[in-house]
Amino acid sequence: MVSQPDVPEPAHAELDSMLSRKFGREVANYFSGSPLNRVSFLRTNHEFITKALTHPSTSFLLFNNLAPLVKDPANLAYAKHEDLRELIGENPFEKSEEELIKEYNSSVTLPLVLFLGLDERKKEGFEHGIYKGQPFFAVDVTPKGTVEKQASAVVESMKGKGLEFMEGRMHMSLNAPEAAVYAQARALLDWNARNPFCGGCGQPTLSINAGMKRTCPPTDYASLPNAQGATTTEATPRPRADCATRKGISNLCFPRTDPTVIMAVVSHDAKRVLLGRSKRFPPHWYSTLAGFCEPAESVEEAVRREVWEESGVHLGRVVIHSTQPWPYPANLMIGAIGQALPDGEKIHLEHDPELEDAKWVGVDEIKEALRVGTSGLGEDAGPEYKEGGLRLPPQTAIANQLLRAVVGGFLESGEVSKI
Amino acid sequence: MVSQPDVPEPAHAELDSMLSRKFGREVANYFSGSPLNRVSFLRTNHEFITKALTHPSTSFLLFNNLAPLVKDPANLAYAKHEDLRELIGENPFEKSEEELIKEYNSSVTLPLVLFLGLDERKKEGFEHGIYKGQPFFAVDVTPKGTVEKQASAVVESMKGKGLEFMEGRMHMSLNAPEAAVYAQARALLDWNARNPFCGGCGQPTLSINAGMKRTCPPTDYASLPNAQGATTTEATPRPRADCATRKGISNLCFPRTDPTVIMAVVSHDAKRVLLGRSKRFPPHWYSTLAGFCEPAESVEEAVRREVWEESGVHLGRVVIHSTQPWPYPANLMIGAIGQALPDGEKIHLEHDPELEDAKWVGVDEIKEALRVGTSGLGEDAGPEYKEGGLRLPPQTAIANQLLRAVVGGFLESGEVSKI
Repeated sequence: MVSQPDVPEPAHAELDSMLSRKFGREVANYFSGSPLNRVSFLRTNHEFITKALTHPSTSFLLFNNLAPLVKDPANLAYAKHEDLRELIGENPFEKSEEELIKEYNSSVTLPLVLFLGLDERKKEGFEHGIYKGQPFFAVDVTPKGTVEKQASAVVESMKGKGLEFMEGRMHMSLNAPEAAVYAQARALLDWNARNPFCGGCGQPTLSINAGMKRTCPPTDYASLPNAQGATTTEATPRPRADCATRKGISNLCFPRTDPTVIMAVVSHDAKRVLLGRSKRFPPHWYSTLAGFCEPAESVEEAVRREVWEESGVHLGRVVIHSTQPWPYPANLMIGAIGQALPDGEKIHLEHDPELEDAKWVGVDEIKEALRVGTSGLGEDAGPEYKEGGLRLPPQTAIANQLLRAVVGGFLESGEVSKI
Repeated sequence: MVSQPDVPEPAHAELDSMLSRKFGREVANYFSGSPLNRVSFLRTNHEFITKALTHPSTSFLLFNNLAPLVKDPANLAYAKHEDLRELIGENPFEKSEEELIKEYNSSVTLPLVLFLGLDERKKEGFEHGIYKGQPFFAVDVTPKGTVEKQASAVVESMKGKGLEFMEGRMHMSLNAPEAAVYAQARALLDWNARNPFCGGCGQPTLSINAGMKRTCPPTDYASLPNAQGATTTEATPRPRADCATRKGISNLCFPRTDPTVIMAVVSHDAKRVLLGRSKRFPPHWYSTLAGFCEPAESVEEAVRREVWEESGVHLGRVVIHSTQPWPYPANLMIGAIGQALPDGEKIHLEHDPELEDAKWVGVDEIKEALRVGTSGLGEDAGPEYKEGGLRLPPQTAIANQLLRAVVGGFLESGEVSKI
């Protein structure tokens, strides 16, 4: 069993500020707390991105079918520019985006090269005007399309160095700063891979802005309208059908993030907490309730709706506690604390029968479970756990942090802070 | 000029609960506070949705090219089932979703019929088991495709009754409860209209789940792969290309909501507030800073990144205040309060030159502007406004509510509540 990774250091805790005096330290959740400055405004800067890509200090995080290259379960591994030259060329950012769009050929595979940001802790080396730090990129080395052979060579070369592409659905073993870097890369590679076609017109799209945008080009040099199976190339580009995303700014061209709510619900007397379990959980395992925000719903409304739909409990006041990026594939978990109405505590599981069980649990039992009964879903609880006791998610899950907050002072003093 | 609408009543304020004693009343922002229970788990219930559609109490909100049918700028108008029979048929939910998918024909236009929820304030009349209330639907009556004639007839018939489809980019004049109903319908109609094709495979998709899902059918009775211009129908359905969205659950099939951050930033000494203006604002108009969350970024990190990119200011602690749905087209505005680091208050506009200006403004000036200088973007300020004074967004904007919160006690006592 891999040891549980740390959660990130609370960023900018600023204990002497008015906000932190009132609200306590900021809780930084796992997958947040990246050391990289995304300098998002430089992604379209031709000179910057070219210099960053080819700088000797630059590190490349590699993914094969969304599995990241690692040294071991706690540490990512990185490639250098020379390891990738055969796959991505000397400089995939050599041409301007206007040129790339004009020359678009849907039958040619362009491996995704994603700019992640600058690690400003390492100010020696790369600089561009006032911006300094070690550049980080991610590259999709999945063997596919017209670069299958070159990508396979990169994969084999990395394996030859004793590195591996870490398989598995979720990677919660990485150290906290690298988990955040991995999360950013995974979310964006996944979004690009899931959206090869335009939802507005059905035609294949082209990745631009160093991986942060997909555009629907007006012409195509490939001879077939659909990239699937198309291999020949025309001498002049074929005009494509009109597309609404080419007029003004369309959200379809930008990465998608799905807001979800996850909430620790306390009883009206603030002595118990509502927990639920789904059928796929191991025995005795419970967690906080959660669900997707719906269109045109505030977070507070989504919290009340989901709690009522899943458990029958009616909530009053809802307060948002902290948030956690969740790159499987693209969720933003918005963590909240809600309190039941005096006459709204009755549990009813039959509205939306998603949960196998829901129950009110006393504070002492939750405190004990946070001490001895936490683990990842597929892992064993700690050595002090006694069979039959309550089991809860690990510290890397926001559910755990929300429960810590409510039993760590709030239920007694009203203080919402981390124990 | 239309009078400024109310903001919604704070829902579930529960002033006697521990959460509300500590955090104050919950702020309900405009476009939230819907009176409808979405009963989301009943959207796929064949019997329920059929009964709800055809019940005599049921109200239909109509949209023509996203313009809602209204009595006047403050009040929506509704149609009845008999007004729509020629367009949507007696019951578009007559067949099961399995049947609709099997019979899918991309050359036939099916007008979107969207289930919004039950108005539980009206418990007399419609009921389905324990669920009672007046059913609300929205219908897209935009004249297009194979139902152009029938849709035009509905549009003309409504105009004949003296009603109108309210044009314009934003509708902030509606009364608060109806604004929330409108927002839900608009967000979903827009998502369906923007996504006629599958981003995973490029083939046209079918709306199911009473408007809350689009699925990629495995076969098509139309003779052409692309709905554009396709009119003939095959005797047997044509198998379509494989699609990743048909395996397991894909977020591409569900409505998209883009999380955005909007933040009132206070100085380290808590005596000033950071405001910015874009070129498109009228003279003297400022607002809080805002921007989109990026993939794998917490809300707190997005707040710090956006403030630094747009203004150069470095923030410490960030606290989330309240949220607002923003259906233009699909944003969830997450409102926060952040405090500048002691040495981080210097303004620098050149990182991401989105703002024309940013400045620190004293509390008294903001209080005065909230009293006399608020208006919608295209509207005049109130009668007490003196030319040259600071102008700010109206109460219906979360920017206004965040500013009210920080000058309404927080900057003096640390209390984050609404003035």
